[in-house]
Amino acid sequence: MNMYDIIDKKRQDKVLNKEEIEYFVTGYTKGNIPDYQMSALLMAICCNGMSTRELTDLTITMANSGDKLDLSPVNGVTVDKHSTGGVGDKTTLIVAPIVASLGCKVAKMSGRALGFTGGTIDKLESIEGYKTNIEEKQFIDQVNRIGIGLIGSSKNLAPADKKIYALRDVTATVQSIPLIASSIMSKKIAAGSECIVLDIKVGSGAFMKNFIQGAKLARTMVNIGKMAGRKTVAVVTNMNAPLGNEIGNNLEVKEAIETLKGKGPKDLTDLCINLSTEMLMLCTNKKKDECEKLVKKSITDGLAFNKFKELVINQGGNIEQIDNPDLFEKAKYSVEIKAPRLGHIIKMNTSEIGRVSSILGAGRETKEDAIDYSAGITIMKKTGDYVKKGETIAILHTNKEDIIEEAKKLYLSSLKIYIQKPTRHRIVYGVIK
Amino acid sequence: MNMYDIIDKKRQDKVLNKEEIEYFVTGYTKGNIPDYQMSALLMAICCNGMSTRELTDLTITMANSGDKLDLSPVNGVTVDKHSTGGVGDKTTLIVAPIVASLGCKVAKMSGRALGFTGGTIDKLESIEGYKTNIEEKQFIDQVNRIGIGLIGSSKNLAPADKKIYALRDVTATVQSIPLIASSIMSKKIAAGSECIVLDIKVGSGAFMKNFIQGAKLARTMVNIGKMAGRKTVAVVTNMNAPLGNEIGNNLEVKEAIETLKGKGPKDLTDLCINLSTEMLMLCTNKKKDECEKLVKKSITDGLAFNKFKELVINQGGNIEQIDNPDLFEKAKYSVEIKAPRLGHIIKMNTSEIGRVSSILGAGRETKEDAIDYSAGITIMKKTGDYVKKGETIAILHTNKEDIIEEAKKLYLSSLKIYIQKPTRHRIVYGVIK
Repeated sequence: MNMYDIIDKKRQDKVLNKEEIEYFVTGYTKGNIPDYQMSALLMAICCNGMSTRELTDLTITMANSGDKLDLSPVNGVTVDKHSTGGVGDKTTLIVAPIVASLGCKVAKMSGRALGFTGGTIDKLESIEGYKTNIEEKQFIDQVNRIGIGLIGSSKNLAPADKKIYALRDVTATVQSIPLIASSIMSKKIAAGSECIVLDIKVGSGAFMKNFIQGAKLARTMVNIGKMAGRKTVAVVTNMNAPLGNEIGNNLEVKEAIETLKGKGPKDLTDLCINLSTEMLMLCTNKKKDECEKLVKKSITDGLAFNKFKELVINQGGNIEQIDNPDLFEKAKYSVEIKAPRLGHIIKMNTSEIGRVSSILGAGRETKEDAIDYSAGITIMKKTGDYVKKGETIAILHTNKEDIIEEAKKLYLSSLKIYIQKPTRHRIVYGVIK
Repeated sequence: MNMYDIIDKKRQDKVLNKEEIEYFVTGYTKGNIPDYQMSALLMAICCNGMSTRELTDLTITMANSGDKLDLSPVNGVTVDKHSTGGVGDKTTLIVAPIVASLGCKVAKMSGRALGFTGGTIDKLESIEGYKTNIEEKQFIDQVNRIGIGLIGSSKNLAPADKKIYALRDVTATVQSIPLIASSIMSKKIAAGSECIVLDIKVGSGAFMKNFIQGAKLARTMVNIGKMAGRKTVAVVTNMNAPLGNEIGNNLEVKEAIETLKGKGPKDLTDLCINLSTEMLMLCTNKKKDECEKLVKKSITDGLAFNKFKELVINQGGNIEQIDNPDLFEKAKYSVEIKAPRLGHIIKMNTSEIGRVSSILGAGRETKEDAIDYSAGITIMKKTGDYVKKGETIAILHTNKEDIIEEAKKLYLSSLKIYIQKPTRHRIVYGVIK
C-alpha cells in the first residue's frame, strides 16, 4: 500500500477500503506522509466525496488516534448534544439539566472554542467558583450520583483530526460536508456517549448558510454515528437570528436560568424542548409525545432548574448567584441602541452581531485571550419585530469605552429595517434520524 | 490576492483569471507558495478542470517562466511536430526532412527522454559524428541555409512546468488531460515554431489508452495552441502496435532511411505522409490533396532523402553510414523469437514490447544511463499477421547475454495468438483542427 495509489484512487472517485483509510490517517498523524500528499488527497475527497462506509472508517480511525473518554462505568444511558455553532447558543446549559432530571446521564466534556463568545465551559466559569477541571474518576462518580457533569476537556481527543484540520485550514478544504461531518463525529465518538443529538445550525449566523447544506451535513453525520454504533439524531435549526435575547457569557447563564424556570424567550425555549425531547427519546425509546410532555413538566415542576443547581453545587459554583442572578458581575458601560427609523426588522446579519459581541469583550480571538464574562448584548427586538424610530432595540454591555462607537455602528449595519412585515420562520426546520 | 482564495475558487469549480494563474505559477516557481497548497490546487484542477482560456493563460505563463527559443531570425514559416510518445516512433527523422524539402523551416530542439528507447536526439547520435549541441546562432544559420536543424535542448525551457510536474508526479495529479495538455504546450510554445502538428498516440503503447481520451487531449491542446497564437493541428494515431518494424536507436535510423527512400513499412509510411501533409498545409495554406501529392513526390523524387543527407552532413554526421546503413554498429547477439503456435497475432501489449527493448539496452532508466545504439527489436510479424508454429516473428538485438532469456519470455507474453483473424485498424484515427 502506498499514498500515491490511495490519492490516485480517490482522484478517480473510487471507494477507499478501511486499510487504506487507516494507512493515510495513521501515516499522516505520525508524520510519515508529507503535507503535499495529504492536501492532494483532501482536495480529492472535497471534490469527489466519500461513501458513508468510508466516512465511518475515517471517523473511527480519527477517534481512535488519541485519548478516549470511557463512559462504561456510568450506570444508565449516556447522552451528548453537539451544536455546530451559532450566536447566543446556550442550549447545553438548559437541555443537559432537563434530560438529567429525567434520568438520562449527561457526562459532557466541552471545549473552550474561539469565537464570538466563549464556549459552554467559559459560560459556566462565569459562575463564581465553578470548577471545570475535575479528575475523571470524580467526574464519573458525580454523573453516577446526580446524572450530570459538565467539565472542560483535559484529554487529547482525536489528535489526527486536529492535525488534518490544521492542513485543511490552509488548503481551502474546510468547506467539505463529508470532512466536516467526520471531523465533528470523530470527537463525539471519542467523547464516549451512547446517544448523540446534533443541533445543525443553518443561516446567517452559522457555518452552513442554507437548509440544503445543513440537511446534507445532518444526514451525513447521522449516518456516520449510526454506522459507528451510536444512536444519533440531528435537528436542523434556524440561525438567521441570535438564539434567545442574550449574547455573552454570564448574560447567557442568566438567560439559561430564566429558561429553566419556564420564563425564557420563545425561540430558545422551543429549541430546548425539541432537543431535550430528542435526547430523551434516544435514551428511553419512549414515544415523542410522551417525551415532550416529560420535558415540559420537568420545567414547570422545577426539576430541571433544581438539577442545574445540583450541578453548580457539585462543581463548586456559588449557588447564591443562581438563586439571585443580579449578583452576576455587570459591565461598566450599558449602551442603548435606538432604531434609526420605523419599520420591521426584516433581516439580522447574525455573524456580524456575533462579531459585535466579540468586540465588546465576550469572545476570544486567540487561545491566550482573556474573556470578559460580563460583556455582551441584550437584544430587545429581533427579526419580524416592529420598531418605532428612537425605540431601544438592543443594549451593548462592555468594559471597554473606546470600542463603543464602532460596536454601535456595526450593530446597526447588521440590521435591515423595512416597512413590510417579513414572514417569521420557525426555529426547528426538521429532524433527521 | 492569496493562494487560499485561489484554491477555494477552483475547489468550487469557478474560473480563475489571468492574474490568479500568474500568481500561483510564478509564486510556486519562486518558492513562495508551499507544496501542500500547490498540490491541493492541482487536485482541484484535476477534478474540476479548466476552461480553454484558463489553460492558455497557464500554458503561456509556464512558457514565459524560463528561456525561449527566438525563431524570428528564421526566413520562412517554422513548423514543429510533437508526439505524445509511443514505441518505435521515428517519425521526426522522416517528416522533418520531407517538409523541409518542400520549403517549410524545421528548427527543432528535441529531448533525451527516459523510456523504452532514446529520444530523437539519441537516435541521431547513433550516426557517427552527428553533433546535437550546436550554438544557437549557427543553428539558426543552418535552418536558413538548408531549412532544417535537429539539435538537443541546451535551454531551460518552461522551468515552471518542470517544477509543477515533479509535484504532480508524487501527488497522483499527472493523469489530468488539461494539465497534460498545458505541460506539453508550454514547452512547444517556448520552443518557438509558428506551426505545430501534434501526434496524439492512443492505445496499448501510449499514455492515452483509448480514442475518447486521446481526442479530448488533442482538442484541448489544439485549443490552447490556437489561443496562444500558434497554428495548431492534432492527428490522433494508433499505438496498439509498435510503429514500423524496428525498435531501438540505430535500427530506427535505418528504418527511417528506408522510409525516406519510399521502401518503409506501410503503417510508418502512411503516418509520415499524413503528418507531413498536415505540416505542409499549416505552413503553406495549400489544400490537402495538393500537399499530399507534394509530400509523396518528395519521397519518390528523392528530395526528402537528400534533405536528410544534407542535415546529417551539416551536423557533422558520417554520410557513408546513411548511404550504406550496413555500416551502423550491430549488436553482438541476434536472437530469433519463434511463434509458439499457429494463428493470427490478435493483440500486442506495446508497452511491454517497449520494456523488452529497454531491457535489451535501447533505453535508459535514469538520466545518467548509457544507451546501447545497436540494441533493440526487429519485428517480423505484427497484429493481424498469420504465423505458423516455429516461424520467426521477431529478432532481439543485444550486447547483454544474461538478459536474453528474460527478454524472450517477456516478448512472447506480450502477444496474443488466436486462430480467428482480427480486424486491422488504420494508423490515423482522425485529425483535430
